[in-house]
Amino acid sequence: MRRSLYEADHDAYRDTVRAFVAKEITPNDAEWNTAGIVPRELFAAAAAQGLIGWAIPEEYGGSGVADFRFNAVLVEEICAAGVAGSGNGLTLVNDVCLPYFLDLATPEQKQRWLPGIAAGELITAIAMTEPGAGSDLASISTTARRDGDHYVVNGAKTFITNGINADLIVVAVKTDPSQRHKGMSLLVLERGMPGFERGRNLDKLGQHAQDTAELSFTDVRVPVANLLGQEGRAFAHLVDRLPQERLGIAVAGVASAAAALGWTLEYVKSRKAFGQSIGAFQNSRFKLAELDTEVDIARHYVDDCIRALNVGELTAVDAAKAKWWCTELQGRAVDLGVQLHGGYGFMSEYAITRAYADARITRIYGGTTEIMKEVIGRDLGL
Amino acid sequence: MRRSLYEADHDAYRDTVRAFVAKEITPNDAEWNTAGIVPRELFAAAAAQGLIGWAIPEEYGGSGVADFRFNAVLVEEICAAGVAGSGNGLTLVNDVCLPYFLDLATPEQKQRWLPGIAAGELITAIAMTEPGAGSDLASISTTARRDGDHYVVNGAKTFITNGINADLIVVAVKTDPSQRHKGMSLLVLERGMPGFERGRNLDKLGQHAQDTAELSFTDVRVPVANLLGQEGRAFAHLVDRLPQERLGIAVAGVASAAAALGWTLEYVKSRKAFGQSIGAFQNSRFKLAELDTEVDIARHYVDDCIRALNVGELTAVDAAKAKWWCTELQGRAVDLGVQLHGGYGFMSEYAITRAYADARITRIYGGTTEIMKEVIGRDLGL
Amino acid sequence: MRRSLYEADHDAYRDTVRAFVAKEITPNDAEWNTAGIVPRELFAAAAAQGLIGWAIPEEYGGSGVADFRFNAVLVEEICAAGVAGSGNGLTLVNDVCLPYFLDLATPEQKQRWLPGIAAGELITAIAMTEPGAGSDLASISTTARRDGDHYVVNGAKTFITNGINADLIVVAVKTDPSQRHKGMSLLVLERGMPGFERGRNLDKLGQHAQDTAELSFTDVRVPVANLLGQEGRAFAHLVDRLPQERLGIAVAGVASAAAALGWTLEYVKSRKAFGQSIGAFQNSRFKLAELDTEVDIARHYVDDCIRALNVGELTAVDAAKAKWWCTELQGRAVDLGVQLHGGYGFMSEYAITRAYADARITRIYGGTTEIMKEVIGRDLGL
Amino acid sequence: MRRSLYEADHDAYRDTVRAFVAKEITPNDAEWNTAGIVPRELFAAAAAQGLIGWAIPEEYGGSGVADFRFNAVLVEEICAAGVAGSGNGLTLVNDVCLPYFLDLATPEQKQRWLPGIAAGELITAIAMTEPGAGSDLASISTTARRDGDHYVVNGAKTFITNGINADLIVVAVKTDPSQRHKGMSLLVLERGMPGFERGRNLDKLGQHAQDTAELSFTDVRVPVANLLGQEGRAFAHLVDRLPQERLGIAVAGVASAAAALGWTLEYVKSRKAFGQSIGAFQNSRFKLAELDTEVDIARHYVDDCIRALNVGELTAVDAAKAKWWCTELQGRAVDLGVQLHGGYGFMSEYAITRAYADARITRIYGGTTEIMKEVIGRDLGL
Repeated sequence: MRRSLYEADHDAYRDTVRAFVAKEITPNDAEWNTAGIVPRELFAAAAAQGLIGWAIPEEYGGSGVADFRFNAVLVEEICAAGVAGSGNGLTLVNDVCLPYFLDLATPEQKQRWLPGIAAGELITAIAMTEPGAGSDLASISTTARRDGDHYVVNGAKTFITNGINADLIVVAVKTDPSQRHKGMSLLVLERGMPGFERGRNLDKLGQHAQDTAELSFTDVRVPVANLLGQEGRAFAHLVDRLPQERLGIAVAGVASAAAALGWTLEYVKSRKAFGQSIGAFQNSRFKLAELDTEVDIARHYVDDCIRALNVGELTAVDAAKAKWWCTELQGRAVDLGVQLHGGYGFMSEYAITRAYADARITRIYGGTTEIMKEVIGRDLGL
Repeated sequence: MRRSLYEADHDAYRDTVRAFVAKEITPNDAEWNTAGIVPRELFAAAAAQGLIGWAIPEEYGGSGVADFRFNAVLVEEICAAGVAGSGNGLTLVNDVCLPYFLDLATPEQKQRWLPGIAAGELITAIAMTEPGAGSDLASISTTARRDGDHYVVNGAKTFITNGINADLIVVAVKTDPSQRHKGMSLLVLERGMPGFERGRNLDKLGQHAQDTAELSFTDVRVPVANLLGQEGRAFAHLVDRLPQERLGIAVAGVASAAAALGWTLEYVKSRKAFGQSIGAFQNSRFKLAELDTEVDIARHYVDDCIRALNVGELTAVDAAKAKWWCTELQGRAVDLGVQLHGGYGFMSEYAITRAYADARITRIYGGTTEIMKEVIGRDLGL
Repeated sequence: MRRSLYEADHDAYRDTVRAFVAKEITPNDAEWNTAGIVPRELFAAAAAQGLIGWAIPEEYGGSGVADFRFNAVLVEEICAAGVAGSGNGLTLVNDVCLPYFLDLATPEQKQRWLPGIAAGELITAIAMTEPGAGSDLASISTTARRDGDHYVVNGAKTFITNGINADLIVVAVKTDPSQRHKGMSLLVLERGMPGFERGRNLDKLGQHAQDTAELSFTDVRVPVANLLGQEGRAFAHLVDRLPQERLGIAVAGVASAAAALGWTLEYVKSRKAFGQSIGAFQNSRFKLAELDTEVDIARHYVDDCIRALNVGELTAVDAAKAKWWCTELQGRAVDLGVQLHGGYGFMSEYAITRAYADARITRIYGGTTEIMKEVIGRDLGL
Repeated sequence: MRRSLYEADHDAYRDTVRAFVAKEITPNDAEWNTAGIVPRELFAAAAAQGLIGWAIPEEYGGSGVADFRFNAVLVEEICAAGVAGSGNGLTLVNDVCLPYFLDLATPEQKQRWLPGIAAGELITAIAMTEPGAGSDLASISTTARRDGDHYVVNGAKTFITNGINADLIVVAVKTDPSQRHKGMSLLVLERGMPGFERGRNLDKLGQHAQDTAELSFTDVRVPVANLLGQEGRAFAHLVDRLPQERLGIAVAGVASAAAALGWTLEYVKSRKAFGQSIGAFQNSRFKLAELDTEVDIARHYVDDCIRALNVGELTAVDAAKAKWWCTELQGRAVDLGVQLHGGYGFMSEYAITRAYADARITRIYGGTTEIMKEVIGRDLGL
């Protein structure tokens, strides 16, 4: 069914994004996959084309347009091109990190950071997960002890996207370790602060061009001026922004599923066996018809979620539904795609193969499928 | 997520429908299930409340409002009340039969039939399926041989909803048996025509209050004036109306799934085991969260389909997607509901149990899930 | 793959069973389904052919052969004939009730009851489930207060198979209501004891020929001589016998799935659509190949379980695995069978349709799928 | 349930294998994964321990024991250790390649090749798949034109396991390109034959330590003395040996699923969230109980298949059932394992993560799941 989400502005923006991806990312994707990281320059180049931070007010160098449809277009084009790993750092900035700065930063902080973010010169990340605390956010053990005008931070974080490239990292800490939810705060750690070390770039199943790292903090002195939002309110700050993060992952899930469908359709139409194209076999036709249906259904739901987000009505439950269902769909899509590609589906030179590997984390990060079901189940009164 | 499909008129209409169902259907549902049929008077009573034929022009006794949202409200309320069998005959008239009369009837035919339909005095049905021809419509073998001002009809039909109650039956026949698709025509057979016999009311797994019958035709002389649409064009006439029929089934599927979810939530919250409500077990919570998600997603898709139908844009492929996916969802919903009801889920006095039995035909009638996937797969070029 | 479980004796016995089913049950099945019960005479007739109680020692009228393969043959033939409802009462006696009498009865009790059971004149049942206690057996509230040489029993039971026909009912009671597991005992209630009332024969989704009833007990005076096993040890007595009960259900599950496969194969080979048999469509072929595979796999597992039971090695975990997996397989089998039968799959005259309805309880009774997973999960140390 | 397949000899052999894997493979697995290949010396070392070619008659340097249980032990231990990629080349020799030499080779060929194979000095491979022909074996286009005492071979093969390391490659060719099945023959190509080129070691999703390559043949002159089996009979030769190949893959599937279960159990028992081990959540418990059940069921089926193979009774259909079901199970097992490992499930240092990637080819190679269903479906007469 025809989508009605986008307007002319978004279509024009999509053309820009598509051209950027084709020119700046796709030709380098293989190299960046081998390197395990994208160059910092990618962020500045993207910013120059208006792909980063359009929600930043004009006075700080952005476009001042807070419309998640633009976020969605970027996500969709990256997934359609099969370069999720290379593009993930960009969308992380827009979908996940920026809201913290836009909503919680003081005017002074905005002045310090937003222009750099808008220019793609300050790369951002967010650090919640710890080696011993994943889904159970309130059990983190990184501490920030107040000492005069500073917090002294000790602890470690892991699985941090943009972990190597990031200049500004929003770090969840315990300012009051005696508390669970109520003792948490957000601090912005900056590149180069003494005691802030980055571990190795982690070796992952997929998303190879995405730098993912462990961070460690040993008596890092962070100025109180780098406190983001209110002390002790980090849990609420995080929870408030999770719907947008999760919706972004859902958008990527649907777009990736659609891409897998597209590559597979192309393959099965051209590949012959037993005297016909393998797409002509009823099993292929039915499986792809199922996938096409579910992509269409998911897209309509996600589009309505985007509309709801834009008017401030997207609930945590809506986002949880979109997140788990669309990423599970993505999982089914890439699995089917690999299967119908036969032996080629196991060869890394094929987009479907890389997409298969890339996809496996989306059911986990941003809140696992299991956590999403908890959120929804509680809403049902269970 | 909040639905935005309905407006104030539909909400008011929903109140009327709900009151009608509660007063006229629910108290009699058990009796009609035992009888295997609803009384003919139900149609007139429904018509008196404006529940039948609002799409009929005012000059013929209807409201002249062609807005499928009203159809959807009726379907939803019947499913929500767990009286699908009792209500199915009414929705068949609105969703499936009426379009044939409204779109294809000549002014003379409209004059003859529409006032009776609008009044609930002429009950309608449509007869396509034959003992030897189901999904493969073009292989029907009922013939209509032209003889002067009449067609002489011979053959048999089966699985005809409203088969006992119907007064006017739109029958697909072969006017040119040498052809497949191109030899088919539609004739309106009327109660009492000599040679038109009804078999017994079939004993079914569910939908017990719905009369479903075999019809047989032995040299039935049908006036040429009862030809509906063009001779030889029946296949196209039928195909054109299938999207609306299938969308109606999809609406019922989602509404039935939602009802199953509701009954089951109520049950698991009140039923105790091992010291807690059984809804408190994580397995129950997760399964119901999954179902709640899929009901929500399906509803948004179906709502968009209704919008598309209302503006003439719903394609056969859209309807096929909605039909198979929503009825499969319905199947999962009632199955889960039964399971979580434990032994009570096998007792016919429970709504979930009856809904389980009722649901099993929806993946089959109106075009099986397999036929839907063929429709979609062909659209993908496979 | 060829089964190696059975020997010549079992094959001969199977011939006897098959002849009995064909002569005594199948011709009456429709009538008994309508009646909601089988005649008591069926038990005596079955006993006369050696179909009941072969595990009973010869001195009490049985064959003294404790070999579960004979139980399995009876179960398999009943399911193969599609008469699960009519045959369920017989297999209940053999698979579920008899072990209580054989293992726990005193010589005096054996003398009183076993000859009648062996002759099919004393029909047995077991009553655990209560309106407020299903899976959580230890929470039953039926009490038996000691009063001299009697227990005075008060309470109610529900979903009792053979509930109307049974003469001897093994009833789980609380002799010490202050305890959970440790306060339970088994009493044999006999037809006609004052205060022992049977409710109506319950109206179920399927297994219509099987009488299933509620029982109520109002100051029923049960002689202490009717205590089966040790006072306070009922929970252990029950748990010890659950593996055999569950294995019997698993055997039925596989046999029912195999029967569904057989009926469906026959149908799809003969039914034509679009110029070929519907079995020739790849989707049908694949779905039936999947089912055939799973039936074969399940059968080999269950056969090994039977071997293990016969040598006293079948664990609760083994039986739980067999029970949930084989009944879930049964569920998939009948669902597929109905779907491939198209509209006929909804008509009660078809074996697949009745089997679909009959099957829905097997994932629930004898311990739900969820309880089985608890049993297995705990064994994994979770 | 206890397995009864193995006897004391196999247990002792298992100890040897386990020690070999622990000493020779596991410590090097990471390095070989990076290298994309195992060293040739691994084959000789394995042969020295009796891990290769025990089915080879003693006169040629083997043990002369044709008992697939020994094959199965090796497969199981490699999968249990999570080193499928490193071990795959060894099991390929035993399970897949050797039967061709043992069954089809002339005494002269046996004399030439078997001692080297038994010593691990001649590494074998089999080349069926071509860039344009996968499942449809009869459509291969590699040709062998007779020219005096030689065949002149032209064409290309792809996805060849041991493709870089192999010294002797059994190549399926068309000796009569005008025929499909009946024009095929098997030739043994040897390392160093002029015109025989190996392409690059292919970059795969998983099984990184396994060399997989394309081979190309340009006017390769192969002596007629290297014809294996009968000219024109290759299709039958291949089909005859597929059951053993597929059973080997099924054994690996079950063993890999069991390993995934084991690693995941260990993880969920030690990992804490929300105040308890994550294995204590009912969802984890149920999912792992499901997996444990299916591993147990699959194992019993595969064990019966091994017994059948050993007595010459394993049919193509049995093997097809085992192959598709056990590899699909493997797929579910590693997927669940990754999910329950959370973020760690995406990190390549975890065994479950590598097993996830390794597993994706097993549903494809040796005959896809879809081909298996065709084999089974045809056997059902569909």
